[in-house]
Amino acid sequence: MKPVNLAEKLAMFDSHWDPHVVADYNDNEVMVVKFAGEFPFHLHEETDDFFLVLEGEMVMDLEDASHAVKAGELFIVPKGVTHRPRAKAECKVLLIEPKGEPNTGDPATAAPKPRI
Amino acid sequence: MKPVNLAEKLAMFDSHWDPHVVADYNDNEVMVVKFAGEFPFHLHEETDDFFLVLEGEMVMDLEDASHAVKAGELFIVPKGVTHRPRAKAECKVLLIEPKGEPNTGDPATAAPKPRI
Repeated sequence: MKPVNLAEKLAMFDSHWDPHVVADYNDNEVMVVKFAGEFPFHLHEETDDFFLVLEGEMVMDLEDASHAVKAGELFIVPKGVTHRPRAKAECKVLLIEPKGEPNTGDPATAAPKPRI
Repeated sequence: MKPVNLAEKLAMFDSHWDPHVVADYNDNEVMVVKFAGEFPFHLHEETDDFFLVLEGEMVMDLEDASHAVKAGELFIVPKGVTHRPRAKAECKVLLIEPKGEPNTGDPATAAPKPRI
C-alpha cells in the first residue's frame, strides 16, 4: 500500500498498445499504456472501458463519430460500443478494465498484461 | 459519450471534501474532489478506494503510516483499511468508488454527490 507514480511506471517500457498493470481496484486492473498509431476497432461485451489521457492526445473513433481526447481528459466507452483508439504521436493513458478482460475484447488477439 | 475535461469540471465548484460525479464506469462513480485540511479517519467495509492526485499534494494517513501523494500519483486504499486524506494546501483529486458508497463510509455523515 503505497503511492504509484504513473510517470515512473510509464518510463519502464517503450512498447505501444501494451498495457502494464500498476494497481488493483476491486476486481479491476489499473494500467498504464502508450498509444501510437491505430488500434483495431473492437468492443467489450461485458464492460465499460475507462481511458484517462495523462500526456499527449488520442482520438477515440466510434462507428459514427470521432473524439479528440487530450491530457487531463477522460473518455469512457460504454460496454458493447465499438471503438478504436488512435494517436498520431505517442500518447500516455491510464486504462481501467476488469481483471482478465482482453484489451482487444478477444482473448485470441489480446496483449498479455504484465505487472510493473 | 464524449471527453470529460477534469479541469473544467473542477472549476465548477469551490467546496472541499465534496465529490462531484463526472462519469460512470460500470457500477462505479468517477468523481472529482478538492481536498483541503483534514478528513475524518474512516473505512469502507466493502470496497477499495481509488485516489489519483491531479494537482497539488495530499497525505494519506493510515493507522501505522503516512504517505505523501503528489500530482500524477495514484493511491488505492484496500477495503477495510482505516484511512484519512488530508492536504495542507488545496489538492485536486480523481476519486472512484462504487455507486452509492458514502464518502465517509457511513451514510449518516456522508456528503451527497452531485453530478456535473
